[in-house]
Amino acid sequence: MISKSKLHYFKALSQKKGRDKVGVFLVEGWRNVEEAMGAAGGIEILLYTKEAKGESRYSSLFSAALKRSREPLEVTAKEFGQIADTVTGQGIAAVVKRFSLDVESEIRRLLIKENAFVLGADHIADPGNLGAIIRTADWFGIDAIILSPGTVDLYNPKVVRSTAGSIFHLPIVSSIEAAGSFEQSLKDLQSGGFRLYGASVKGKGDLRSVKWPKKSFLVIGSEARGISEEAAALLDEHIAIPKFGKAESLNAGVAAGIFLSHASFQLRK
Amino acid sequence: MISKSKLHYFKALSQKKGRDKVGVFLVEGWRNVEEAMGAAGGIEILLYTKEAKGESRYSSLFSAALKRSREPLEVTAKEFGQIADTVTGQGIAAVVKRFSLDVESEIRRLLIKENAFVLGADHIADPGNLGAIIRTADWFGIDAIILSPGTVDLYNPKVVRSTAGSIFHLPIVSSIEAAGSFEQSLKDLQSGGFRLYGASVKGKGDLRSVKWPKKSFLVIGSEARGISEEAAALLDEHIAIPKFGKAESLNAGVAAGIFLSHASFQLRK
Repeated sequence: MISKSKLHYFKALSQKKGRDKVGVFLVEGWRNVEEAMGAAGGIEILLYTKEAKGESRYSSLFSAALKRSREPLEVTAKEFGQIADTVTGQGIAAVVKRFSLDVESEIRRLLIKENAFVLGADHIADPGNLGAIIRTADWFGIDAIILSPGTVDLYNPKVVRSTAGSIFHLPIVSSIEAAGSFEQSLKDLQSGGFRLYGASVKGKGDLRSVKWPKKSFLVIGSEARGISEEAAALLDEHIAIPKFGKAESLNAGVAAGIFLSHASFQLRK
Repeated sequence: MISKSKLHYFKALSQKKGRDKVGVFLVEGWRNVEEAMGAAGGIEILLYTKEAKGESRYSSLFSAALKRSREPLEVTAKEFGQIADTVTGQGIAAVVKRFSLDVESEIRRLLIKENAFVLGADHIADPGNLGAIIRTADWFGIDAIILSPGTVDLYNPKVVRSTAGSIFHLPIVSSIEAAGSFEQSLKDLQSGGFRLYGASVKGKGDLRSVKWPKKSFLVIGSEARGISEEAAALLDEHIAIPKFGKAESLNAGVAAGIFLSHASFQLRK
């Protein structure tokens, strides 16, 4: 049995306010725990049920995770259920330190690269969409993702789950919560030689005819309103995915996947 | 105030069992109500709150929907909240008759077409993924979608919502719930000249080098286990999306979008 205050601590991690306060987040399931072991900060607390500890399939993974955890903590299945976000939890979770990536130094790193494809997520509100975008960016080897203020919190449990481990694989920077901070990143990249593209249903450019330069930045806009006016004003080109049917728009994660596949296939030729 | 039995009727529509019993489903929001007006069966019951009725932006849409509804039903905001699946409902919903597409006649229709691109959804479990797949297929003008048994119910409220209206735009056939029924469709299409492709992370084919024939069928497999063994055994080719990063797999909706964009761009040239 864990203490009430500990249970309270874990439960607080399901809310942004709670996560912000302690600077950690919770990842669930064997896959994510494995990924977390390799993360910069390592595992703060390894949380597991007796059943998970006894899982023969994962016994070596469990020992390795235990070794790399500052604090192992066995909980009952009932307690785990109260802490975990998933209904069908695997009985294993890890409290992990957040990566504190600084926008400015990340941009400096990108500016000195010869080839870089960077993604911007502008006011993406749906956790599943942001997770899918991060997972897709990881698949195509995208160099970094910059999240605008107003985008769902990166450490939201549904975002973390939807990334399927990719949250640990590539640099993701949350813009500081101040007006104009996202736009400043766009300006910095642009003056450093990046060409700025926007994915837009009303874009004049056609995805099929884009010649992606070695330094490209692509903004994916919000599900409901597209790219914000402030960011849109800075872009070099607004590109649309050709449509042959009747849908009014595409899911933001799907649109990102289509853009990234076409850009990657061209750039990696 | 609506009667208890009516409220019970509406609530039953949130469950597959309830929908199956009465042969209708519920669509929510102005966009979907607009789409439902044009649907074959029209609107059975138009459900609205006083507030929705008074929305000046939608007054002409409201009158048109009212005219094409068999039964108009004003409910209180509280009642609407009990019926609707969305938390932030718009106070308008419609009960719509299901389309009763028969697999065999739909396949006959596809076989006599000179060009046809058909999508198969094999054990897609997540409603958001199935909705995104349908919406994407609609964007690219795909000719039909066939759902395997074991795929989430087409009329699940979250599926309907995620299609963003596309559920009304293209033929979607649910296979009969019997072992081998999905495979029978694949066989019928194959012997009618369709080439069968599977989207697979372990596929030997490379998406970049596929020459899509005029009659193509693409299977998207389940999020957890990929394409089922039975269906996989029938396929002509298993194709993978080239990977340049570290993610283990892609979200099923995102993968479908990438496949359909590349196939469409090639076929519509």
